[in-house]
Amino acid sequence: MDSSGDRRGPSRRNLLAGATGAGIALGTAGFVATGARGATQPEESSPAAPPEAYPFHGRHQAGIVTPAQDRLHFAAFDLTTTSRDDVIALLTAWTAAAAEMTAGRPVGGDPTSYDSPPNDTGEAQGLPAARLSITFGFGPTLFRDASGADRFGLAARQPAALTRLPHFPADKLDPRRSDGDLCVQACADDPQVAVHAVRNLSRIAFGTAALRWSQLGYGRTSSTSTEQATPRNLFGFKDGTANLKAEEPAELDRHLWVGRGDDPKADWLAGGSYLVARRINMNMETWDRSSMREQERIVGRDRPAGAPLSGGEEFSEPDFALAGRGGKPLIDENSHVALAHPTHNDGARMLRRGYNFIDGNDDLGRLDAGLFFIAFVRDPVRQYIPMQTRMSRQDLMMEYLQHRGSGLFAVPPGAAPGEFVGQALFA
Amino acid sequence: MDSSGDRRGPSRRNLLAGATGAGIALGTAGFVATGARGATQPEESSPAAPPEAYPFHGRHQAGIVTPAQDRLHFAAFDLTTTSRDDVIALLTAWTAAAAEMTAGRPVGGDPTSYDSPPNDTGEAQGLPAARLSITFGFGPTLFRDASGADRFGLAARQPAALTRLPHFPADKLDPRRSDGDLCVQACADDPQVAVHAVRNLSRIAFGTAALRWSQLGYGRTSSTSTEQATPRNLFGFKDGTANLKAEEPAELDRHLWVGRGDDPKADWLAGGSYLVARRINMNMETWDRSSMREQERIVGRDRPAGAPLSGGEEFSEPDFALAGRGGKPLIDENSHVALAHPTHNDGARMLRRGYNFIDGNDDLGRLDAGLFFIAFVRDPVRQYIPMQTRMSRQDLMMEYLQHRGSGLFAVPPGAAPGEFVGQALFA
Repeated sequence: MDSSGDRRGPSRRNLLAGATGAGIALGTAGFVATGARGATQPEESSPAAPPEAYPFHGRHQAGIVTPAQDRLHFAAFDLTTTSRDDVIALLTAWTAAAAEMTAGRPVGGDPTSYDSPPNDTGEAQGLPAARLSITFGFGPTLFRDASGADRFGLAARQPAALTRLPHFPADKLDPRRSDGDLCVQACADDPQVAVHAVRNLSRIAFGTAALRWSQLGYGRTSSTSTEQATPRNLFGFKDGTANLKAEEPAELDRHLWVGRGDDPKADWLAGGSYLVARRINMNMETWDRSSMREQERIVGRDRPAGAPLSGGEEFSEPDFALAGRGGKPLIDENSHVALAHPTHNDGARMLRRGYNFIDGNDDLGRLDAGLFFIAFVRDPVRQYIPMQTRMSRQDLMMEYLQHRGSGLFAVPPGAAPGEFVGQALFA
Repeated sequence: MDSSGDRRGPSRRNLLAGATGAGIALGTAGFVATGARGATQPEESSPAAPPEAYPFHGRHQAGIVTPAQDRLHFAAFDLTTTSRDDVIALLTAWTAAAAEMTAGRPVGGDPTSYDSPPNDTGEAQGLPAARLSITFGFGPTLFRDASGADRFGLAARQPAALTRLPHFPADKLDPRRSDGDLCVQACADDPQVAVHAVRNLSRIAFGTAALRWSQLGYGRTSSTSTEQATPRNLFGFKDGTANLKAEEPAELDRHLWVGRGDDPKADWLAGGSYLVARRINMNMETWDRSSMREQERIVGRDRPAGAPLSGGEEFSEPDFALAGRGGKPLIDENSHVALAHPTHNDGARMLRRGYNFIDGNDDLGRLDAGLFFIAFVRDPVRQYIPMQTRMSRQDLMMEYLQHRGSGLFAVPPGAAPGEFVGQALFA
């Protein structure tokens, strides 16, 4: 089943407004059998309700065009083994566990003996599947180590675009929040379900791979379906209005999914994508002391509605030529919306799927908070790197941002039943 | 209005299962006027639906017996001023802002000029009140500094019980996650709403108080109403089954609310309570490798249902005398449930209101995760300190726990309209 077709799921907020009765919490859309863990639920047919669970198997991995869930737990792992067979065994076990967890079932069933550790850590018992998606990616270091050595016999198949992202101007990267051999993006509408997924995958990896870094995102900042309202970031603005959406299949083929022949060495990636992760701290204390006028100039949109400063509504196309008093464009050419817009990026679009984060505060009492930026693109070299290079130099908002973490991962296509994720790479 | 009477609100999960129609997301229970920020909503009357907003004013502060919301942002502040008037001004401004935000309104209305910073940071615009509660507390250092000096003319009214918690065996406290002059507990069903509250209170405090530490909790671990299901902690178990509940007013008067005359120096605290905060790291990697039998022995309950090992269902009273094979008690005397039970603590009970947290991982790849324990008690000297002393020595679970943060705060009673929180202390 093609997970790119799962466009029935509005956000939890839309869900709350639109749905009726107990079918919301327990029902399914007749889509995939599911239920609270440890219990079976009768399948219901309710075309208005979103599925409670997304299918794990499909042509594409879930968690990309899947309507963005409310919560995120992202994790990067480093392999501690030197054995190619161990890597295959890990991906096989991860695939099986992900299929179980995304269906709302515990990992590995109940223990056969009380004298063994339980197969599942248990904290999601009784919770529904919560629209969990688990998306796996491969970092450049899976293919070659820092010295360039071929770690697992995969170097010849490393995509040309899969290298460490360049150092952008003003980057202040923390290696402990960057890179990794493997990545896991777990998204769900219940954070306990997303955390449970990463924890159980970490546990399965014990002895083969170790957690390198992880990031909890508490609120989605993007919509990936036209049925979702655009949420607000921590600067109080709607962002990502022009995002690629699940309802644009031709655009997705053009901008999101790697095509066969894109990279002759890496046809195993066809039907997959690239995941760019950036941990972007937002200096809220200084932002909050700037005037509303200045904030809107920096963003290029008004705050209340998210409309471009050239006029209209949220989804009106910005008119970058329209001038106001004194002949100056109403939208500053160095505003965030101008620099990120496809017309200023050779037509490049991306599917953003980021989350707000907050991780306590620093020694000066400033919140350690911001945007955990995630974007999926067909070609990071063409779609992300030039734009970020320009934005890091010119974007007026950069005064209030610090990029502290970074990662690029190749996201293989979805697995069919009986396959493991990324199997074609090892074939 | 007495916020201790707000017992109509089941958890979000119950809400999903039990409610119907658009009244869930937008409606109220005819209880307090509210609506999405920036819009007014018609008031509806729906006895089954919980209120979307809890009243801020009342005899007790909200956020104590209020049905535990799903998400937490807790913050501790240190005063940077030496002026008593500044402290009063801060509490006055905080009270006004809290009343607005808990009703789902932006702080301070819209800006009068685009040339000024907006009064509200904006990221909660369009979101409902999300059952936000904001609870304020006073730490011992508000009364006396480290040298014992009276900072704001309040030392004579410091409650005898309000001192720094003692060092318990095995404590590994981080001063940057402990203590503070003031605390704010913001709870809501939407984390963006809770974060928005702390951020705006921090902003209001600028120049008077600075954030000392803060903690995000992503999932509640306690029920404070009989209408809420007991959630699971990160060890996969139901915890806090014996919690004080809103539906036990006589028990609340006995164990939770400070009474007039409890402390002659501190009658300003009558109708308030004490808040104990403990950041307890849980060593999940080692826990996950112990057998199910061992896990259940440590907890004293079974994992699937949360029933005591002496038999019955979740809410069955544990029978600590009941012996099994070999004459040994079925519930280990050093199990968590035995040591925490009122029968082994001179009848002391508490109202727990803690949250699961996860803050990335350490250098060894272990998740920095656990329980942010919050408990409200009438007298910490009698109800918390002896129990924690015993548990830190004997609790079998301590092998898997590390207490890394600690705080004790006096939580004044609720404010009437026109008063500020804690006003009686300054009278």
